[in-house]
Amino acid sequence: MGSMVLPSRFPLVQAPMAGVQGPAMTIAASNAGALGSLPAAMLAVDTLAEHLTEVKAGTAEPFNVNFFAHTMPTLTEEDTARWRGRLAPYFERFGVSSEDIAPGVLRRPFGEEQLEVLLGFDVPVVSFHFGLPDDRLLEPLRARGTLIMSSATTLAEGLYLQGRGVDVVIAQGVEAGGHRGVFLGVDGRRAMVEAAATQVGTFALASQLVRELSVPVVVAGGVATAEDVRGAMALGAAGVQVGTSFMLCDESAVSDRHRVALREAATGEAGAVTALTNIYSGRPARSLVTGPMRELGFVCEDAAPFPYAGTEMAALNKAAAAQGETGFASLWCGQNPRGMREVPTAQMVANLAQGFIA
Amino acid sequence: MGSMVLPSRFPLVQAPMAGVQGPAMTIAASNAGALGSLPAAMLAVDTLAEHLTEVKAGTAEPFNVNFFAHTMPTLTEEDTARWRGRLAPYFERFGVSSEDIAPGVLRRPFGEEQLEVLLGFDVPVVSFHFGLPDDRLLEPLRARGTLIMSSATTLAEGLYLQGRGVDVVIAQGVEAGGHRGVFLGVDGRRAMVEAAATQVGTFALASQLVRELSVPVVVAGGVATAEDVRGAMALGAAGVQVGTSFMLCDESAVSDRHRVALREAATGEAGAVTALTNIYSGRPARSLVTGPMRELGFVCEDAAPFPYAGTEMAALNKAAAAQGETGFASLWCGQNPRGMREVPTAQMVANLAQGFIA
Repeated sequence: MGSMVLPSRFPLVQAPMAGVQGPAMTIAASNAGALGSLPAAMLAVDTLAEHLTEVKAGTAEPFNVNFFAHTMPTLTEEDTARWRGRLAPYFERFGVSSEDIAPGVLRRPFGEEQLEVLLGFDVPVVSFHFGLPDDRLLEPLRARGTLIMSSATTLAEGLYLQGRGVDVVIAQGVEAGGHRGVFLGVDGRRAMVEAAATQVGTFALASQLVRELSVPVVVAGGVATAEDVRGAMALGAAGVQVGTSFMLCDESAVSDRHRVALREAATGEAGAVTALTNIYSGRPARSLVTGPMRELGFVCEDAAPFPYAGTEMAALNKAAAAQGETGFASLWCGQNPRGMREVPTAQMVANLAQGFIA
Repeated sequence: MGSMVLPSRFPLVQAPMAGVQGPAMTIAASNAGALGSLPAAMLAVDTLAEHLTEVKAGTAEPFNVNFFAHTMPTLTEEDTARWRGRLAPYFERFGVSSEDIAPGVLRRPFGEEQLEVLLGFDVPVVSFHFGLPDDRLLEPLRARGTLIMSSATTLAEGLYLQGRGVDVVIAQGVEAGGHRGVFLGVDGRRAMVEAAATQVGTFALASQLVRELSVPVVVAGGVATAEDVRGAMALGAAGVQVGTSFMLCDESAVSDRHRVALREAATGEAGAVTALTNIYSGRPARSLVTGPMRELGFVCEDAAPFPYAGTEMAALNKAAAAQGETGFASLWCGQNPRGMREVPTAQMVANLAQGFIA
């Protein structure tokens, strides 16, 4: 069967997972008939070019490149003081001083530099998280026939994206692992807390977007098996996006610590307990529950604005890990981890694609 | 088609909605081929008998009676002082004194008295929320061939209910309106807050329960239209439970204030914003967002344990409403309100039943 909306053989997007996967998974997924994704939000532009070169060399099939589209906030001294004040007991415990805290790899929004790199390659699909960049950055991509996708977490966001002319809306239900794509009504600490608490489940979100939008809707969040793919397509989806099920595949680049936790989530008796938390970056994202999440509150009003909260957590994680304490790194995971398998990515694509067969 | 698992013509449960509907909707739903539900959690036993008599007179079709199965906590003086302390500014604003606060209709768990009433009627199906009562209360029902259902909000709860021998597990995803059925890991204030923050979306929950349980699974939470019914059945459900879509039906008993808010949610531009909150009863439940929810925090650690938090809120609501302030009553609503229609319940059943036709 051919995918009507996506250029790939199956209407199956391998979800971009920054920090968890690189070009190897993109290539394997695309070669197997899915739309493989390259997560670019944490890449410096020269690394982006290298990764694109690698993907182009590895597959002749279509693939997707994913960027973040947030606005970089002004980080005030008060923001920093408040967040460091909240984390002070940890800093003391692990002997971290202000001088140890250095801005690391910050998540940067899509801009001129990234656009320039993209235009040097033939990129068939680009997806955005946290809304969309300005039209002036999108027009050159559109002019080359690039398919543009972005995530909606509410009906209002879906209508906004449709109004901005995206080709595909990704309905990112609350079950999804990693960052919520929420971008409307998140200005200010209080608004971010409320946005996290009002996120919509995949079933209800997909139902509403499929019915009320005219653009095709790809369903994401909790889609983990072929049966789930069948269920999502029966809801009226034009395709599905699957992340968590790929996290233990051979081409995954998860850390050892993350891998151990994911294995337990995939097979443990009680399933997995995940929650939305903003402590790792400043924006709500779904992680397996960690000690610091419990101690700080899953969604903590003191966290510095995205992406800056990650600076302090990275310093803490470095110091804590050196002392054998591992809870200070995020453990992104969706709410349906039972579909993870330690198989090649190509095998997972084949498994999931069974769901497209009536 | 016949329903394989439920005794009704369609494998469609009209969700029990305490405070929102009475026997009229039960009768209309059952006569139209769904499994109508009678919410009994807030009924005194003599009223329960009256309602059962009314249902029996109104339909010869099978129906369901729903009870809560929580353990009544010991309400300490500290619990009351803490909650009233938190609400003090409201009490002052609306002139409520301690003497005005009288225990009203408390939500009581299923016990000997309710069992005795049930045994006086031929009740084909009983469903429970917040776990299950003791086996000694279930055995007499089982001996009469009553089908027993209960809600699971996690995989662990589904496995527990299956182990206790229920006939059907209701997968109550986070999208559902009203009270979360969560019953494992909720002892203590902190645990209740964490339970609210880790509730699982319908899609991911249904996927896991259908795959990992051997008992039939009825899917609830966000199922609002015939297309949604089709999607849920494709996920492997044995049936669906639908609540919110019935809330504006002719037989609904919602308050005027609630009706106005639901109409806006059903048709307004931006859809509806709901959140889980414990301020109205002490347990997390999904309501349209109100002013007091925002002000107290959606899930407030100061709330008295369920069901006692409702006592203070009822007194506040009474005083506030007399002064034209309407935010102190809960506005239960699921995350997929776009399926509500102001039609007879029978018409809604017929609409939804289209989803069972392949």
